[in-house]
Amino acid sequence: MSSPLFKTVCFIGIGLIGSSLARAVRKHGLAEKLIALDISEKARTAALALSVVDQATDDPAQAIPEADLIVIGAPVGATQAVGEAIGPYLKAGAIITDVGSVKLAVIRDLMPSLPDGVTFVPGHPIAGTEHSGPESGFAELFEGRWQILTPLPGSDQKAVDKVVALWKGVGSEVEIMDPHHHDKVLAITSHLPHLIAYTIVGTANDLEGHMQQEVIKFSASGFRDFTRIAASDPIMWRDVFLNNREAVLEVLQRFTEDLTALQRSIRWGEGEVLQKRFTETRAIRRAIIDAKQA
Amino acid sequence: MSSPLFKTVCFIGIGLIGSSLARAVRKHGLAEKLIALDISEKARTAALALSVVDQATDDPAQAIPEADLIVIGAPVGATQAVGEAIGPYLKAGAIITDVGSVKLAVIRDLMPSLPDGVTFVPGHPIAGTEHSGPESGFAELFEGRWQILTPLPGSDQKAVDKVVALWKGVGSEVEIMDPHHHDKVLAITSHLPHLIAYTIVGTANDLEGHMQQEVIKFSASGFRDFTRIAASDPIMWRDVFLNNREAVLEVLQRFTEDLTALQRSIRWGEGEVLQKRFTETRAIRRAIIDAKQA
Repeated sequence: MSSPLFKTVCFIGIGLIGSSLARAVRKHGLAEKLIALDISEKARTAALALSVVDQATDDPAQAIPEADLIVIGAPVGATQAVGEAIGPYLKAGAIITDVGSVKLAVIRDLMPSLPDGVTFVPGHPIAGTEHSGPESGFAELFEGRWQILTPLPGSDQKAVDKVVALWKGVGSEVEIMDPHHHDKVLAITSHLPHLIAYTIVGTANDLEGHMQQEVIKFSASGFRDFTRIAASDPIMWRDVFLNNREAVLEVLQRFTEDLTALQRSIRWGEGEVLQKRFTETRAIRRAIIDAKQA
Repeated sequence: MSSPLFKTVCFIGIGLIGSSLARAVRKHGLAEKLIALDISEKARTAALALSVVDQATDDPAQAIPEADLIVIGAPVGATQAVGEAIGPYLKAGAIITDVGSVKLAVIRDLMPSLPDGVTFVPGHPIAGTEHSGPESGFAELFEGRWQILTPLPGSDQKAVDKVVALWKGVGSEVEIMDPHHHDKVLAITSHLPHLIAYTIVGTANDLEGHMQQEVIKFSASGFRDFTRIAASDPIMWRDVFLNNREAVLEVLQRFTEDLTALQRSIRWGEGEVLQKRFTETRAIRRAIIDAKQA
């Protein structure tokens, strides 16, 4: 029997993503020992009760020194604090990766705390649900989904290869990308859609009571799909917008221009403009179905 | 064996909704004979091949005179033309209903063509998919979903009751509503979400080629859900926006204000505002789940 990819893996933050990866690592025999490092006692208790990990603690000194791989699954706004907390305990040769939805800010906030001989391989799994917490995780979350890695220039290639092997081992397809480019692409595919969904559900939430009840009652007519996205973790998303500000504001500007143009077409009754625009968007849906991402 | 609710039903437009209702009417034995009146030869051929109807024609004279119930499933912008085409052939006592997503404009455009003794019971099923055409229909589409009816003051109550019985017979729950109120509620729950989805997918569609391919590849991060909505029938939706202009522009104004406020909070790094807003929206999702509309 071959030895597993890692001896000990420590998950910092054992929420939806962290606990799903822990389950998948266990399922595929990719590590010998799994530790959760989480400030939430509730999350630690749940992770232990569900046997997602072998050990759970809120003390870096109890978790980091033996870890060969550390997976940071905390909100990206906590990255600097996480780095300062674990930096002193990292062993030589340790590998760190993360699952944050922005990459430049995470690199900026984590790197100053890392000693020589430790390799950080930033990552972002394009997978998730609107649920939070260790109870919501499942081992199959990453199967057939993309894992983006944004390794830094000059990184130890063996460490990068091991992180690639980890994600392939849990069923993901791996894409290597520049972190700046990642943040621009995700601003469009993820951050803007979430901002829009939060906004429209918030607009409905501000309606007077009677109207709000009817919005819920007749939500199946389109609104419902936005509420699922807008039920995502508030702290995680707060941090995404604060840490990918430039890219989000730029793509939001494009969106607002396009919305204003459609608004004007509605006001002036320009049916041909509307029909043309609504026809073009069907092609993207077909491409997504063809790419098996639907 | 009791006699069915209607002897002959004519479906004007045998697309997704028309063909689904025809299938459901057949499945539940609610009519003896089903006729499709459709200008598209392709749709007529498909509806006959699928045995969705017993007869299909593009000639009102061949379909309307014997119809006890006429279901208008054409884009709402075609309502006036439909009324003028069928008006001369309607028999006394005939009942007309429709499935349009706006109600005031349909009432305005249809009523002038209707002779005395014919009752129009406007309706809107809160059900559908992003697919079009008779092949996309299925008999279970309306089960457990809301059917809104907006009968006119002074309408023949027996006719209204028969339309209620039709929709309950195919599994819907029926809500009676004022047409003006319908158009306001649906502007929020349906028309605005569709406009937003069309816009964001259009914004992505305008990106340079390389970026566009990545949007498709990584669409699972949020964007994907919008593309499903934005794949809806372009002509149907063009007509919705042109015919519910005031209500859509009003709710769009509220949305734009809210989006601008969030944009400002991102620019100025107001994390508490973002977190508060993102937390409030979770409550609506829970209410939709509780209302069994999720």
